[in-house]
Amino acid sequence: MKYFLSLLLLPAFCAAAISLMPMPAKIVPGQGALPMNAMLRVTVAGYSDTRLESAVERLATRVSRQTGIPRIHRPSDALPALVVSVKAAAPDWPTLGEDESYELTVDAASAQLKAPTVTGALRGMETFAQLIVPAPHGFEIPSVHIEDHPRYPWRGLMLDVSRHWMPIEVVLRNLVGMAAVKLNVFHWHLSDDQGFLVESKRFPKLQQLGSDGFFYTQDEVRRVIAYARDRGIRVVPEFDIPGHTTAWFAAYPELAAAPGPYEIERYWGIFKPTMDPSNEAVYTFLDAFLQEMTALFPDPYFHIGGDEVEGSQWKESSAVQKFARDNNLANQAAIHGYFNTRVQSMVKKYGKIMVGWDEVLQPGLAPDTIIQSWRGQTALATAAKSGYRGILSFGYYLDHLRPASYHYKIDPGESLGGEACMWNEYASAENVDSRIWPRMIAIAERFWSPRETTDLGSMYDRMESVSRQLDFVGLEHHTYQEAMLARIGPVEPLRVLADAVETAGVQSRRQAQKYSSLIPLNRMVDAAHPESEYVRQLELAVKRGDVETLKAALTIWSQNKVSVDELQPLSINLRAAASIGLEMLSYIEKRQTPPADWRARQTSRLDAMNRPIAELYLAAVRPIQALFEGRFVIN
Amino acid sequence: MKYFLSLLLLPAFCAAAISLMPMPAKIVPGQGALPMNAMLRVTVAGYSDTRLESAVERLATRVSRQTGIPRIHRPSDALPALVVSVKAAAPDWPTLGEDESYELTVDAASAQLKAPTVTGALRGMETFAQLIVPAPHGFEIPSVHIEDHPRYPWRGLMLDVSRHWMPIEVVLRNLVGMAAVKLNVFHWHLSDDQGFLVESKRFPKLQQLGSDGFFYTQDEVRRVIAYARDRGIRVVPEFDIPGHTTAWFAAYPELAAAPGPYEIERYWGIFKPTMDPSNEAVYTFLDAFLQEMTALFPDPYFHIGGDEVEGSQWKESSAVQKFARDNNLANQAAIHGYFNTRVQSMVKKYGKIMVGWDEVLQPGLAPDTIIQSWRGQTALATAAKSGYRGILSFGYYLDHLRPASYHYKIDPGESLGGEACMWNEYASAENVDSRIWPRMIAIAERFWSPRETTDLGSMYDRMESVSRQLDFVGLEHHTYQEAMLARIGPVEPLRVLADAVETAGVQSRRQAQKYSSLIPLNRMVDAAHPESEYVRQLELAVKRGDVETLKAALTIWSQNKVSVDELQPLSINLRAAASIGLEMLSYIEKRQTPPADWRARQTSRLDAMNRPIAELYLAAVRPIQALFEGRFVIN
Repeated sequence: MKYFLSLLLLPAFCAAAISLMPMPAKIVPGQGALPMNAMLRVTVAGYSDTRLESAVERLATRVSRQTGIPRIHRPSDALPALVVSVKAAAPDWPTLGEDESYELTVDAASAQLKAPTVTGALRGMETFAQLIVPAPHGFEIPSVHIEDHPRYPWRGLMLDVSRHWMPIEVVLRNLVGMAAVKLNVFHWHLSDDQGFLVESKRFPKLQQLGSDGFFYTQDEVRRVIAYARDRGIRVVPEFDIPGHTTAWFAAYPELAAAPGPYEIERYWGIFKPTMDPSNEAVYTFLDAFLQEMTALFPDPYFHIGGDEVEGSQWKESSAVQKFARDNNLANQAAIHGYFNTRVQSMVKKYGKIMVGWDEVLQPGLAPDTIIQSWRGQTALATAAKSGYRGILSFGYYLDHLRPASYHYKIDPGESLGGEACMWNEYASAENVDSRIWPRMIAIAERFWSPRETTDLGSMYDRMESVSRQLDFVGLEHHTYQEAMLARIGPVEPLRVLADAVETAGVQSRRQAQKYSSLIPLNRMVDAAHPESEYVRQLELAVKRGDVETLKAALTIWSQNKVSVDELQPLSINLRAAASIGLEMLSYIEKRQTPPADWRARQTSRLDAMNRPIAELYLAAVRPIQALFEGRFVIN
Repeated sequence: MKYFLSLLLLPAFCAAAISLMPMPAKIVPGQGALPMNAMLRVTVAGYSDTRLESAVERLATRVSRQTGIPRIHRPSDALPALVVSVKAAAPDWPTLGEDESYELTVDAASAQLKAPTVTGALRGMETFAQLIVPAPHGFEIPSVHIEDHPRYPWRGLMLDVSRHWMPIEVVLRNLVGMAAVKLNVFHWHLSDDQGFLVESKRFPKLQQLGSDGFFYTQDEVRRVIAYARDRGIRVVPEFDIPGHTTAWFAAYPELAAAPGPYEIERYWGIFKPTMDPSNEAVYTFLDAFLQEMTALFPDPYFHIGGDEVEGSQWKESSAVQKFARDNNLANQAAIHGYFNTRVQSMVKKYGKIMVGWDEVLQPGLAPDTIIQSWRGQTALATAAKSGYRGILSFGYYLDHLRPASYHYKIDPGESLGGEACMWNEYASAENVDSRIWPRMIAIAERFWSPRETTDLGSMYDRMESVSRQLDFVGLEHHTYQEAMLARIGPVEPLRVLADAVETAGVQSRRQAQKYSSLIPLNRMVDAAHPESEYVRQLELAVKRGDVETLKAALTIWSQNKVSVDELQPLSINLRAAASIGLEMLSYIEKRQTPPADWRARQTSRLDAMNRPIAELYLAAVRPIQALFEGRFVIN
């Protein structure tokens, strides 16, 4: 199969060479390239500090991994060099709105990276690493001049660690991936109905009884924050209150609006347990808790969740109802507003600015609050009208398992930026990378690059190229699959099937069975990708009339047998679809028109295959259907 | 492709289920199985300590990874359980000859592991993890009674970290792999011409000037030793003297028998630089050095190398020659013997027993010395006659890239056991796991299991099964390949080619080009496996007359195109061989005898493909040749 990693915006002479993502604000290709057949030297001219030095060290390691060129001590001056010139330090902690710009110039003799601060240099070094491409006798860096800065100052990934436990290694490697595509906010969803995942020294029962024994110690939290800081990434913690709090109540049932006991929730959904807004002891507890956690996390923004208050505990509690009447709180929203206002004043007392989901937008909310919208641009616009800053997450839910093209089309508009969200009901530490990457790369481009960067073909080509490079920074979105398939059965035919299918969306998964945190995520639906790059390549082959590539793939499919029970129907469909495709291809090759009744029968057979089986779609049908739609012209 | 993981020694009713390696000393299969559809509980009855507790914790993690079944807090008593009963602690440090035996009994109700010491329990837990197999609705552990103990007390892996730097992560994950197949000695080859890789606080120039800036700090050494101890593995360090010492001389040229300056060696081979045996300052240096290093490594055995003294520096040094005359040292061997005796007395003074390669066997060698033989069983027998204990490494050189069957047939005979050796001229941190695993599993069985365990078919089937399980302990011998292929070019056709080839042996690599530590190991020969499991499966398909499997594979091969320059001839051969195979298969299917001249022409074409191209053999030819040899009978 051929890969075309062209960048449509660039002149043809370097079209195959440059594959950057996110696309820089300004890029001027030059002639020729800087050869890189031996180790790269990275030198610092001007300002330097430990953050820059570690970044330089990491770049040297990454380039060595990406190329396979060994690193040596005291490299000679004759080696190709990247010279990094920085004017000043970055802020002590990564800061919303700080200067992230840089300029990068590569010619046949050297590469120069210039940035006002260390943060810009971090961004530019990632661009530099993406520029390295194979050349006839090693590698090279195409000549280019780049001037770059982000479109939005808030470019985030939210990771839910409560529905499935995500060990610190998962967090660290995803921070590396985030940095590689210039994201700058890690939003850490640390508590929910299914778990309280961070050590509280003040209230240790929270993690002891609110988790399955796995949680981040405060030392680990500090390690994550330092690791993120080194990469120019802010860490915004979220403790979701007053709903989504069952795990808190497993430790402290007295905080709930209905009597306990409570246990960690094992199922997915919106649950009744909610903090008691009428109980002054709840605020005393939260004050002490917030004092501890606001000190642990240095970022000035602090997320208190505030979404999906189920409401029935409040309705059924005479204490809450009396409290509402006494305080003129007309309905659930008003009670929630009261609660938020109380929480906000504590958050503020401890020097932080509050962030919350859409639902926190209630009268009395402080004007500096940031609204994170899962509801959409309209909700954000409403908030903006009242003077609130917003960040968009609607349309960026990675766990919905939609194609990258879907997310790519959503624009954060007049907001601070956006955050992709990875809720983990249907992902574990084993496969979570594959649910975040590579689609996160497309969203990262939406957050960083000029609004006009919208070509889908170019996006997919560049996403695939960068996705492959991310293997070398330690992400597991490619490597996770082999062992998962081998666990299911003989791996060869499963690999072929895995490349021919795509995971059904989150709705299909919800409908398929009642999932819980105890159900193993070890089936094909967990091993398969949300989008099949293999199938996309075949769709491109149809477009360019590449008979050979198509025939090879259809032949493999037509002979592939998987005997695992739940996958047999899919495997049978794949063989059938491939046979139909081969037959159609042979009509096309002979320049014959297939009989109308044959054609009608086959297209309806293909259509019938477009339904989820074992929570999977047979993506392989798409290029075959395209053959029938006359999109194929032999070139 | 179908996998047959049968164990020929076992009765048919559980043949597909049990796939242990190394094979236990005694195994009695039972009826039925212990179901494991939810989390496994591991409980300790009787003696316990932190080593056992960590092992129990690791087993729970491994089982969860291997199955995908999530771990939860406070598992209910209703869950399936493994009860571990240990009588006593293991020795403080893993000890040569300690009791490693255990008994494991599984029935439909529970699993019981009994061992005299914690070490036996460690071994038994690895057996237990291997027993877990997929069942219709989850997993199960077949009923079985096992009584097990090792055949040899010294079962090792030697890792060279000098020719290519191996970060501590490589060491740690390979220790986990070693424990999984019951190896108990990690022989750490820490210095050589190409590098001095461990921190000396007494002589810091050793690592500062003798390495490329990457070396193990003493804290890291202690971490490795503790990690190994936890897994019942001894750590035996090797500092190779008086030859293989160029890296020492980069720091301290005055130790050499010829004047400096010296630089780290970049090429492979046997080099001139050798310590000066006539210089008393050398012994003073070594005494201080050995004092430091013998204190750092707790194992009573200490390896001083002693192999491949090149000799010319001694011949050409008037000081050495005068010294030899003055001390009646008749030849190079006698000078070397003198040097060894001096070193041995220091090693002994610091409480250690010396280990050396064959060449240290000289008059005057202390009787407790252990001889490690790379020369063969005869050399070991000679040493044994003089009363020396030996360990065999001849026949276990993993870097020679020979098939597992070759290593499997070598028997350590009347020795303490053996060590597989992984010299790293042609392996880097990126692919070293794939050079050690899975072939190490076969050698581990040779070291542990009864001498009579020799069936090759069973060995390969079980090796493949255990090899897949090792993905879940973190080894990268499967996952390394994808990114290496993607670096070379479009990954799909490269993957097909990679499965059809095998790396040529080390001799072919030496002849192919003058390799050095600066040449990237990033080509197909570095990404391909030493043995192709895919091809082995096709050879099995030939044996059982499985037309469908063969035809599918041959069809894929016949259409596969790789356009990378150095691989094109191989890719063309693969297509040609596959077409020949398909043609032959069609004769067989039609029960026709092919024309004699056609047959002769095709077999000679296939024979001509049996030569290395780009340091690779086209293993795919084997099953096709087998078709011509009449081994195929349609069933």
